[in-house]
Amino acid sequence: MYTRNLRRNTKRASESAESASIDSNHIEKKPAERKTPAKRSNQKAGSKLKVIPLGGLHEVGKNITAFEYEDEILIVDCGVAFPEDDMLGIDLVIPDFSYLVKNREKVLGVVLTHGHEDHIGSLPYFLKELNVPIYGTKLTIGLVETKLKEHNILNSVQRYNVNAGETIKIGNNFKVEFIRSTHSIADSVALAITTPVGVVVHTGDFKIDFTPIQGDMIDLQRFAELGKKGVLLLMCESTNVERQGYTMSERSVGRIIEQIFDDSKDKRIMVATFSSNIDRIQQIVNSAVSHKRKVAVIGRSMVNVVKTAGELGYLDIPKNTLIDILETKNYSDGELVIIMTGSQGETMAALSRIALGEHRQVEVKPTDKIIISASPIPGNEKNIYKVINELIKKGADVIYDGLMDVHVSGHARQEEIKIMHSLVKPKFLMPIHGEYKMLRCHKNLACELGMDKDNVFIMANGDVLELTKNSAKQTVNAVPSGQIFVDGLGVGDVGNIVLRDRRHLSQDGLMIVVVAMDKYTGEILSGPDIISRGFVYVRESEELMDEAKAVVNEALAKCERKNINEWAYIKTLIKDTLRDYLWQKTKRSPMILPIVMDIE
Amino acid sequence: MYTRNLRRNTKRASESAESASIDSNHIEKKPAERKTPAKRSNQKAGSKLKVIPLGGLHEVGKNITAFEYEDEILIVDCGVAFPEDDMLGIDLVIPDFSYLVKNREKVLGVVLTHGHEDHIGSLPYFLKELNVPIYGTKLTIGLVETKLKEHNILNSVQRYNVNAGETIKIGNNFKVEFIRSTHSIADSVALAITTPVGVVVHTGDFKIDFTPIQGDMIDLQRFAELGKKGVLLLMCESTNVERQGYTMSERSVGRIIEQIFDDSKDKRIMVATFSSNIDRIQQIVNSAVSHKRKVAVIGRSMVNVVKTAGELGYLDIPKNTLIDILETKNYSDGELVIIMTGSQGETMAALSRIALGEHRQVEVKPTDKIIISASPIPGNEKNIYKVINELIKKGADVIYDGLMDVHVSGHARQEEIKIMHSLVKPKFLMPIHGEYKMLRCHKNLACELGMDKDNVFIMANGDVLELTKNSAKQTVNAVPSGQIFVDGLGVGDVGNIVLRDRRHLSQDGLMIVVVAMDKYTGEILSGPDIISRGFVYVRESEELMDEAKAVVNEALAKCERKNINEWAYIKTLIKDTLRDYLWQKTKRSPMILPIVMDIE
Repeated sequence: MYTRNLRRNTKRASESAESASIDSNHIEKKPAERKTPAKRSNQKAGSKLKVIPLGGLHEVGKNITAFEYEDEILIVDCGVAFPEDDMLGIDLVIPDFSYLVKNREKVLGVVLTHGHEDHIGSLPYFLKELNVPIYGTKLTIGLVETKLKEHNILNSVQRYNVNAGETIKIGNNFKVEFIRSTHSIADSVALAITTPVGVVVHTGDFKIDFTPIQGDMIDLQRFAELGKKGVLLLMCESTNVERQGYTMSERSVGRIIEQIFDDSKDKRIMVATFSSNIDRIQQIVNSAVSHKRKVAVIGRSMVNVVKTAGELGYLDIPKNTLIDILETKNYSDGELVIIMTGSQGETMAALSRIALGEHRQVEVKPTDKIIISASPIPGNEKNIYKVINELIKKGADVIYDGLMDVHVSGHARQEEIKIMHSLVKPKFLMPIHGEYKMLRCHKNLACELGMDKDNVFIMANGDVLELTKNSAKQTVNAVPSGQIFVDGLGVGDVGNIVLRDRRHLSQDGLMIVVVAMDKYTGEILSGPDIISRGFVYVRESEELMDEAKAVVNEALAKCERKNINEWAYIKTLIKDTLRDYLWQKTKRSPMILPIVMDIE
Repeated sequence: MYTRNLRRNTKRASESAESASIDSNHIEKKPAERKTPAKRSNQKAGSKLKVIPLGGLHEVGKNITAFEYEDEILIVDCGVAFPEDDMLGIDLVIPDFSYLVKNREKVLGVVLTHGHEDHIGSLPYFLKELNVPIYGTKLTIGLVETKLKEHNILNSVQRYNVNAGETIKIGNNFKVEFIRSTHSIADSVALAITTPVGVVVHTGDFKIDFTPIQGDMIDLQRFAELGKKGVLLLMCESTNVERQGYTMSERSVGRIIEQIFDDSKDKRIMVATFSSNIDRIQQIVNSAVSHKRKVAVIGRSMVNVVKTAGELGYLDIPKNTLIDILETKNYSDGELVIIMTGSQGETMAALSRIALGEHRQVEVKPTDKIIISASPIPGNEKNIYKVINELIKKGADVIYDGLMDVHVSGHARQEEIKIMHSLVKPKFLMPIHGEYKMLRCHKNLACELGMDKDNVFIMANGDVLELTKNSAKQTVNAVPSGQIFVDGLGVGDVGNIVLRDRRHLSQDGLMIVVVAMDKYTGEILSGPDIISRGFVYVRESEELMDEAKAVVNEALAKCERKNINEWAYIKTLIKDTLRDYLWQKTKRSPMILPIVMDIE
């Protein structure tokens, strides 16, 4: 193990032509030394380490944590969350970065544990606000680069490759060791962050896979060694902490896939899985090769990942194995495997489009064998079942999780988490990555292992844990945190009021009442016209619409009689009258928008 | 076993004062004899039995099947489905009854297998269109009555109680035997329907529970006896057909509940479960009694069911056990159990309101033990997890499925379905109740048991299976079937176009452009005004809104210059121009509604 000095370049990359050319190979060169102000070298006695989760707690997704010591902040991960059902029209949810932006001079960089969306997905949005260097293993940085390219900021961002087993120094106060881990994406690491008050171990996402497909197994010995020397704080993931036992090895899926290949002679095999699960893809490729099948890949993210992972050496595909989807017509069914996206039933992904007969290159045949090598992420069940139903209706033989063990999780279950705790034996514990119930379950598990409950901190996003060499203290809601919605090109321009309106519109639709009125006399010059959308079939509800108009007319007549021509009053009157009428008639509350036009 | 003659009263209940007074006890009296036209007694040689599923196939829910022989139609079950996520604002989904309404003179009545919503929930809507007698076991009819009361049609509907083990004759062509079954609601039955062409066994929903809580176990011997004599068609449910092994007995849950009670001395215990699962409620009550606790019940449907089931003798609650929720303050925590609704995280149910601190009578305490005795129905996962998170945040100890086995399914798994097939040994099989993938899995299972695949019919709603004594033939899409949406008081007035608009509005909101124009000159007298809802925060997007207005103004100026004052043209121009502008600026497509007001 060796330690490299990767200090932050104090010049922002965007200001610097030379840093703009840094690429992932740049790691070989020594980055510019940071000009450290003199005061920094004198560590104040009694300074505290602040650990500030800005995402990933009480939720699954958008993982990000800030480590602050004096005038330096180091960030670990920068992920997105996917919108909940009631976040209508929202594409992505990113963390609230305002605390970091406010302290922009302190921020040293972002260290990444692995290349999943919930750990890297917010980077483009973050880096546009705060251009700092990023550190990660080769594959992780490779996946980030694809993302930065899409956002047109690749050339302005400094990126450093770090190997598992290496330690880098970032700023004056942080040494970050990358520890080899195993997860459902290759090149995952846990982190040991040495700070002036002690060592923090951050597990990232992990499982204990004794027989991983690519590379060595998780470096349990190193966790033990760190634990033996003394770990101040363990930040340990909680995704599967409610589940008993062990998560099976990725290799167990390979055996099932091999068996399916054995049983599917002469059939065309299609496999949908997570594009990021390179080890899964490797196993499918292995079975393809051993069964003398060619492999075609479809779906944008699958094509991207296979390309990136192949170039970086994480995917070993023998020559003449990969073919273009257009070439598949030159082969018989028994000579083909098609690997694709869409294992979660995503509407626009390859598998969904194939299921609906909307894919340009692939049509399902009754002789196809289709493997969905994934299990539904909570909330996606119905979508993926729809896809399965459609595929089976078209006659295909579909194998999905539940029928056969064609998927394993990438997250540690209870026994694995117990191993991690028992090796690291931290003074303090912060369960991370999970809903509140998981964090609590994790706390209970730790206490069963003998940990003092006062040493376990269930935090929320924006809370701060202040650590000294001997103590830990939690302050609540200390910094801003929250959800920023990305909708199309807009970041943060859709908030709760807009969503409330979308929800209202989605439930009962909308009724617009337009009236043109003489500005001075209050005389009605045109209207009221009533326009509705999403409320009822207008043609089949003529009576209702006519009556609604009559109700509005009556309300307006009242105003005319009383010579009222105040907009606000008239609008409120139309709204209230119509709402009461419609509720009584239909027990529905469409959004009512009265529009009064002044004519001079 | 004895056979009763329950012929349909040819007078409609609504026309008949005497039948209007029939209640569930009325079964003791002999119903009015049907005046059977002479031709009916002469069964035509070669007539076929038509089995027509109108709901429940390729879906979970709204189960209903019509059995048609010559001029008689018998209906089995009449359930609702709950709306999918994309059916915005819809309260319920009911079957398309138009085939039955069109053949109203043929319809004899509705036989019910059990009292779950997906089997009885559409009855009020159906009976309002077609008032025919209904037949069911005592508890089923009792639950239907609550429903009919809510719809104010209780007194106009003829209801007949039939016990498990009894056979009733309905019309000239159908004898229906009620066979005791076991499921997650008491008093469930399977049906053996004897028709002129042979016997049809309809399983309803079932599991094979050897140790049910209430009443005897499922009458396996009778299924065997029928099978021995010869069954033409088996219609067998498919809900759990994808799962291997056996479903555990309801009694196994009781043991876990008892254990939790043992471990929760001095704690207040709350249990949320399905209100219809009376056996579950019975077991909770049993544990309460053995631990000297009082029981309070909250949540409208829970209160209703406990009342109905108690009155009918399906729930045995010792005197002085049940107390009002307001009385709970007179007891210590260790003396209380509160049973409630909300096990699916339903927003308005008791448990959700308690979790959010919005329940008037019950507040969570850190010393509470809360059992969620249910597992999430697909689609409800996120809602129930939210509730669990909130309860745990308030300090309660929450036990849910996955942590402990506090729930079992009411549906047969593969081994149980194999038993059913092996006892009934039908000539033909129609898998029912399930998505396509389940029906297909059921077919595979049957074929593994030796059934000829040509004798298994995977049907869709609206398909017809025509049966003679020796043959079965499927015709596709033979009768209308589909989804009718219930939204508020409206039945069928919201359809796909309205839903499409709601979806559009829910994704990107709405932008209204209003212009007042001189009818004759085309001169713009007022506007354009732009109003938006659910699109962006207007205050923070002033520039965008100003530019949008400018874009519209320009388009209008173009029209003025060219003297165009055709509404349709102007509207289309506004719409297209604005849509292009907004997409380019935001990558969003709000609904754009241009409104042009004519002023004379």
